[in-house]
Amino acid sequence: MLKIDTNIEVRYYETDQMGVVHHSNYIRYFETARTLSMKKAGIPYDEMESQGIVMPIISVSCTYKRPALFGDTLRVTVILEKLPTVKIEFKYEVHNAQDVLLATGSTVLAFAHKETLRPMRAPQYLLDILKPLF
Amino acid sequence: MLKIDTNIEVRYYETDQMGVVHHSNYIRYFETARTLSMKKAGIPYDEMESQGIVMPIISVSCTYKRPALFGDTLRVTVILEKLPTVKIEFKYEVHNAQDVLLATGSTVLAFAHKETLRPMRAPQYLLDILKPLF
Amino acid sequence: MLKIDTNIEVRYYETDQMGVVHHSNYIRYFETARTLSMKKAGIPYDEMESQGIVMPIISVSCTYKRPALFGDTLRVTVILEKLPTVKIEFKYEVHNAQDVLLATGSTVLAFAHKETLRPMRAPQYLLDILKPLF
Amino acid sequence: MLKIDTNIEVRYYETDQMGVVHHSNYIRYFETARTLSMKKAGIPYDEMESQGIVMPIISVSCTYKRPALFGDTLRVTVILEKLPTVKIEFKYEVHNAQDVLLATGSTVLAFAHKETLRPMRAPQYLLDILKPLF
Repeated sequence: MLKIDTNIEVRYYETDQMGVVHHSNYIRYFETARTLSMKKAGIPYDEMESQGIVMPIISVSCTYKRPALFGDTLRVTVILEKLPTVKIEFKYEVHNAQDVLLATGSTVLAFAHKETLRPMRAPQYLLDILKPLF
Repeated sequence: MLKIDTNIEVRYYETDQMGVVHHSNYIRYFETARTLSMKKAGIPYDEMESQGIVMPIISVSCTYKRPALFGDTLRVTVILEKLPTVKIEFKYEVHNAQDVLLATGSTVLAFAHKETLRPMRAPQYLLDILKPLF
Repeated sequence: MLKIDTNIEVRYYETDQMGVVHHSNYIRYFETARTLSMKKAGIPYDEMESQGIVMPIISVSCTYKRPALFGDTLRVTVILEKLPTVKIEFKYEVHNAQDVLLATGSTVLAFAHKETLRPMRAPQYLLDILKPLF
Repeated sequence: MLKIDTNIEVRYYETDQMGVVHHSNYIRYFETARTLSMKKAGIPYDEMESQGIVMPIISVSCTYKRPALFGDTLRVTVILEKLPTVKIEFKYEVHNAQDVLLATGSTVLAFAHKETLRPMRAPQYLLDILKPLF
C-alpha cells in the first residue's frame, strides 16, 4: 500500500457563505494531492500527457465529517491499495492541523489515449515505478 | 417521486486541457440544478438561509460516462425519491442535447442551524411543500 | 455600438465567507456573457475554435461597486464599441434585478491560431457578421 | 516598498481547453499570494476577519503576457508601494520557473466592518506591523 501526504492551505475563494470550504473543492483537493503525490513518486502527470496518455475520471465520492475553514492547512493523504490495471483507484483522507479527520473519499480513473480518449491499460513504466513502492 | 429538469450551458472556464468539462464541475452542476429545482418547487434556498437554516453536504458521488463539452447545453435532472427526515438525498442525471447520458450522481444533505451548524430535522414548511408534489 | 444583455443567476459556490459573490467570479461572468452574446450574434465560440481560431485574453479589469448576492439574477451587458482588428475590446456592466449597478469591467482579447497560439487578425467572417450590427 | 514572493503550483483544474491556465485564475493567484504574504508579514487575514474586519475588493486588473501551464510552479510577487489609508493597493508579478514574466496585475481593497460592510480606515495594528517593513 502506498500512502503519500500533501499539505494544502485553504484559499479564501474556496469558502462559501456558510463560512466553510465549499464541498466541491474537496474533489479538487483530491486531484491536487494526487498529481503532487504522483510527481513525488516519480510520475509527473504533465509528462504522461505529453506522452499521449490522459487519465479521465470514472467516478468520485466524498464523505464530509467536519468543515474545513479558511486559515486551515489541510493534510491530504493519497492512498493506493492496489496496482493499476485498466483502472486505478485512489483513496483520500483529509485532516486539519489539529489532526481532526474532515473528509474521506475515493476516485477511480482510467487510462486513455490523449487524442482519441480511447481506453488503454496502465502504461508499463507506471507499473515499473509503482511496484517497488508497494 | 419528484423529478425536475434544469438546463445548464457549459461555460468555457469549466473545461480543462483534456478538452472536456473538468469532473469537479459536475458536483457544482448538481448544486446549481438542486437550488434552481427547489426554487421552482417553491423552496428558495436563500430564504431558508435567511430563516437560519443551512443544508451542509454529508456525502456526494458521481459516475462519469461520457464527457461534456463546451457548447453543450446540459439537462440536469434532480430526483427526490423520499421525503426528508434529518437528511435529504437527491439523485442526479446529466444528459446532453442529443439525449446522451453523461453522468449520474447523488448528494446527501443535512439540515442545520445557521449560526451553530448543529443538526436539526427537516423544517415542517419544507415537508408541507414537498408532500403534495409526491 | 453593440450591446447585448445576458441573465446569470448567482450560484451558491460562487459566494465566499464574506457572504457575497467572490470578486474573481465577475471575470467568469464576463466570459460567460461574452460567449453567450457572441452566440446570439451568430458567432458561436466553439465553432471558431473548431475552425482553428482561439481568442486568448490580453488584459482584464473590473471595478466593484456593490456586492452580488446568492439569489440574485444578474444582468450582464456586453458592449462592443469598435470593430475588431488584431484585438477586440469588450466592456461590461453588471446590474442586479433591482437595476443597481454592481460592477463594470473590460477585457481585451487577441485572435490566435489554435495549435501555435500565434497572433492573427480578426477573421473576415467575424467582421462580416459584426459590421451590419453596428 | 514591500515585496514578498509566494510559489504556487498550477493545478490541473485551473487549465482550460486552450491548454493553458484560464485567465480568471490569476485573480485567484493574486489573492492566494496576498493572503500568504500578509500571513508571513504577521497579518493573518483569518485573524483580521475574526476581529470583525473584512477587506472587500474595489478593483482588479491583470495583463497577460505569456500563458502559464500545468506543471509550472509560479512565483507570484506581491508588491506594496504605499502604506494603506482607507484603501490598500497591491501590485503583482507572476513569473514561471524559467523566470519568464507571465502576467502583471493590481488590486485595490478597502477595509470594512464585517457585519455591516461599512468602510473604515486601515486598523492601527496593521500600520504598526507594516511601517517597520518599509
